[in-house]
Amino acid sequence: MILRELADRLGCALRGDGGVVVTGVAPIDGAGPGSLTFVASAKWAARLKATGAAAVIVAPSVETPLPSLLSDNPYLTFARAVAILHPRAVPPAGVHPSAQVHPAAVLAESAHVGPLAVVGARARVGARSVIHPHVVLYEDAQVGEDCLLHSGVQVREGCRLGNRVIVQNGAVIGADGFGFAKDAEGRYHKILQVGIVVIEDDVEIGALTAIDRAALGETRIGRGTKLDNLVQIGHSVKVGRDTAVAAQVGVAGSATIGDRVILAGQVGVAGHLKIGDGVIATAQTGIPADVPPGAVISGYPAIPNREWLKSSAVFPRLPELLRRLRALEKGLDGRTPDRE
Amino acid sequence: MILRELADRLGCALRGDGGVVVTGVAPIDGAGPGSLTFVASAKWAARLKATGAAAVIVAPSVETPLPSLLSDNPYLTFARAVAILHPRAVPPAGVHPSAQVHPAAVLAESAHVGPLAVVGARARVGARSVIHPHVVLYEDAQVGEDCLLHSGVQVREGCRLGNRVIVQNGAVIGADGFGFAKDAEGRYHKILQVGIVVIEDDVEIGALTAIDRAALGETRIGRGTKLDNLVQIGHSVKVGRDTAVAAQVGVAGSATIGDRVILAGQVGVAGHLKIGDGVIATAQTGIPADVPPGAVISGYPAIPNREWLKSSAVFPRLPELLRRLRALEKGLDGRTPDRE
Amino acid sequence: MILRELADRLGCALRGDGGVVVTGVAPIDGAGPGSLTFVASAKWAARLKATGAAAVIVAPSVETPLPSLLSDNPYLTFARAVAILHPRAVPPAGVHPSAQVHPAAVLAESAHVGPLAVVGARARVGARSVIHPHVVLYEDAQVGEDCLLHSGVQVREGCRLGNRVIVQNGAVIGADGFGFAKDAEGRYHKILQVGIVVIEDDVEIGALTAIDRAALGETRIGRGTKLDNLVQIGHSVKVGRDTAVAAQVGVAGSATIGDRVILAGQVGVAGHLKIGDGVIATAQTGIPADVPPGAVISGYPAIPNREWLKSSAVFPRLPELLRRLRALEKGLDGRTPDRE
Repeated sequence: MILRELADRLGCALRGDGGVVVTGVAPIDGAGPGSLTFVASAKWAARLKATGAAAVIVAPSVETPLPSLLSDNPYLTFARAVAILHPRAVPPAGVHPSAQVHPAAVLAESAHVGPLAVVGARARVGARSVIHPHVVLYEDAQVGEDCLLHSGVQVREGCRLGNRVIVQNGAVIGADGFGFAKDAEGRYHKILQVGIVVIEDDVEIGALTAIDRAALGETRIGRGTKLDNLVQIGHSVKVGRDTAVAAQVGVAGSATIGDRVILAGQVGVAGHLKIGDGVIATAQTGIPADVPPGAVISGYPAIPNREWLKSSAVFPRLPELLRRLRALEKGLDGRTPDRE
Repeated sequence: MILRELADRLGCALRGDGGVVVTGVAPIDGAGPGSLTFVASAKWAARLKATGAAAVIVAPSVETPLPSLLSDNPYLTFARAVAILHPRAVPPAGVHPSAQVHPAAVLAESAHVGPLAVVGARARVGARSVIHPHVVLYEDAQVGEDCLLHSGVQVREGCRLGNRVIVQNGAVIGADGFGFAKDAEGRYHKILQVGIVVIEDDVEIGALTAIDRAALGETRIGRGTKLDNLVQIGHSVKVGRDTAVAAQVGVAGSATIGDRVILAGQVGVAGHLKIGDGVIATAQTGIPADVPPGAVISGYPAIPNREWLKSSAVFPRLPELLRRLRALEKGLDGRTPDRE
Repeated sequence: MILRELADRLGCALRGDGGVVVTGVAPIDGAGPGSLTFVASAKWAARLKATGAAAVIVAPSVETPLPSLLSDNPYLTFARAVAILHPRAVPPAGVHPSAQVHPAAVLAESAHVGPLAVVGARARVGARSVIHPHVVLYEDAQVGEDCLLHSGVQVREGCRLGNRVIVQNGAVIGADGFGFAKDAEGRYHKILQVGIVVIEDDVEIGALTAIDRAALGETRIGRGTKLDNLVQIGHSVKVGRDTAVAAQVGVAGSATIGDRVILAGQVGVAGHLKIGDGVIATAQTGIPADVPPGAVISGYPAIPNREWLKSSAVFPRLPELLRRLRALEKGLDGRTPDRE
């Protein structure tokens, strides 16, 4: 494709030679002839001098002799360019003969069900959705339109996925929540988990992530939210819209997480609390209590990020602090015994 | 079902109208006509005024005009009520024609083996156990009676599950432990893991949890213990009875964990140590050494929870402490240079 | 097998009765007649007095009346002895009739493909490799020679495994990385992940571990590196050679990890940083920035392990420090108000 055509399809202004051919995308340091690359922020612009890329997506303010597509959000424009230059093959409509589809399942004609997938009684798969090999949909599971479920995904009974939901390999949606009642002898008795999981439109769920069904009612992941790999979402959790949850985060039962929240890797969220809209928790933060909207938090137990940064800088000096304190104690009256 | 019948089946005293019909269970805030709810502790009792529930399980001391089932352990009684009001369909006995069962496998007549499951040579499945689609039992694996293995579960060669064991989707029982010997060049050489995993009766294992086989001998999960999702149990670990392990906990090889222990979410346990009976570790605790019975611990490295709470409260004030210390140093002799 | 024959095969010197029969390996405390055990370090040597083992692998300096195989690296010699005494059954060459192999796939004649495995178009499996039941190889996936892929493993499109690679159950290689561009309304747009994963020779990958495909280019795991269970490797990460990554470690996108690194359990590594050769990070360490070669680090944010140990020892005394500081403040001028 020539750059001018790509500019048209992306609705971008063009600077420089629109006749250059772009055949794919590449990182700025690994780009060769035919590659389109991008510069998301001015600090990377210096690298453009050394790149072998044929063209680049940049903000209008970035100057470069390379043929350029101009965008106020180069990263977003790049995302759209990747989809144009690297279209993924769409599996054909139909059910592979080795798949096991219950006669009472309801599949759109345009849906694809791959080899050895299992579709239970009354399960539904919407138009143009792709069910890869070895996916299991239990009875009454629902998958909307234009969804993509990768191999090894398990969707338990009655759980519902909206439209354009993507689920990476091996994720488990709707396994039983961790609910037990203790008797007088200290033994645990299972509380049947009779709720479901609802995944709203445009959600993506990472590989080997587990989202538990509610004990009662529903666990819900809001529209546009993205979960990374190996995430744990406990029963009856509500996650808002456009929230990003990085890998290995754990959210305990009945927590409520707002819209546009960012939980970085390995964050832990205790149960039955409320995280406000727009909260950012840095990696490994442990959140034991409610967090007001917009807070940026770190540490365990979580405190405001700024305070945490300052205290963390003092932490390695604790032995020195103790020594200095002791010196003062001795100097103060000349008689204070060393309390060490 | 009318409330009086349910009271009879649960062996509970009834207060109020026993003729009210209950059709299902619901949370106190989401309960509508026909719903049975519960109040586990007195602090939630105020919400009973606003509930739409038809009836409630309460401690005898809780006063409410609602028709009530009286129980000293409302949560436990509720667990039993859920099972009565929401019976799960039991799959029929027999082997689905698409399942791959080795001729030398031994299946009870009353067992269910679902579509596309794989049962290896000499593997055994006991009476009334349910093997869902896409479960794999390697050769010589044993599953006791009344077990429930959800789709995607893998049980490796020679591992043994007792009776009434529940395994959620995608869990892996008996993968090789992480055992390597280093040579003089720093290369790792695999130590074959020739032990097994033994899961005792009444254990539940969460989705995507991994329990490694022992290098030698066995890894063992004791009777009645419950493991949540995405838990890692290393090789040769012994977990006692009636212990609860929350999501994303990791237990390194050869650790021994006692009875009635509670490990909250994301706790880490180092290898070759011993955690006594009844220990409670709060979320994200890192346990590097033995823990005496009954201890309540937090932090990393783990210390008594009370101390940790107090020190954690001081942590955000470390910069202030440093400033105050410096002020004292200056004041002490008027000449101390700032050591910052 | 008699001990003398084993000594010959291992190339070890023999001490004592070479005619004793050894039938298997066992831990020192659980060894019975016919068992071979080992003592890796002198501190365990005292236990040899009580063992029931028939023979032992020891360093030449360890004295014991037991028939002994002498080795400067008893653990490594033990690893080799296990493989000799406990040979694993090798599944026969050929494709199980229930496997779904695309006509355009290329399988070595000596490869084994088990029941219900799926091999996509143009996927390749090398000589003597074993593909267990329920493995899915997407189109263009490549598996080298002498590999072992356990049940439930998913290898996504175009990903490449070298020779002698072992993958434990349920691991996912090549799922989409977590890459999204945000628009002005705060919504995330997926960036197609068009790179691949490359696994070099002699790597082992644990159960339920996820290694994401690169956005562009490749994610790479170096020769001889071992990953434990439930590990997360983000997109475009490069891991060096002979590195060991323990369970539940998370490495964010585009990080570079050197050779012979050890990351203990639950360590977190931020994105776009560089960890030098030979670094050791103890359990639960959080690594936010570059780490020089050879460093031993702990804590979050990571600091040198020695400093962390000292500061961690002071942490439980923070309330005491605060009290002592306050006492000094009062004593200094007799008028300082308590700032608590």
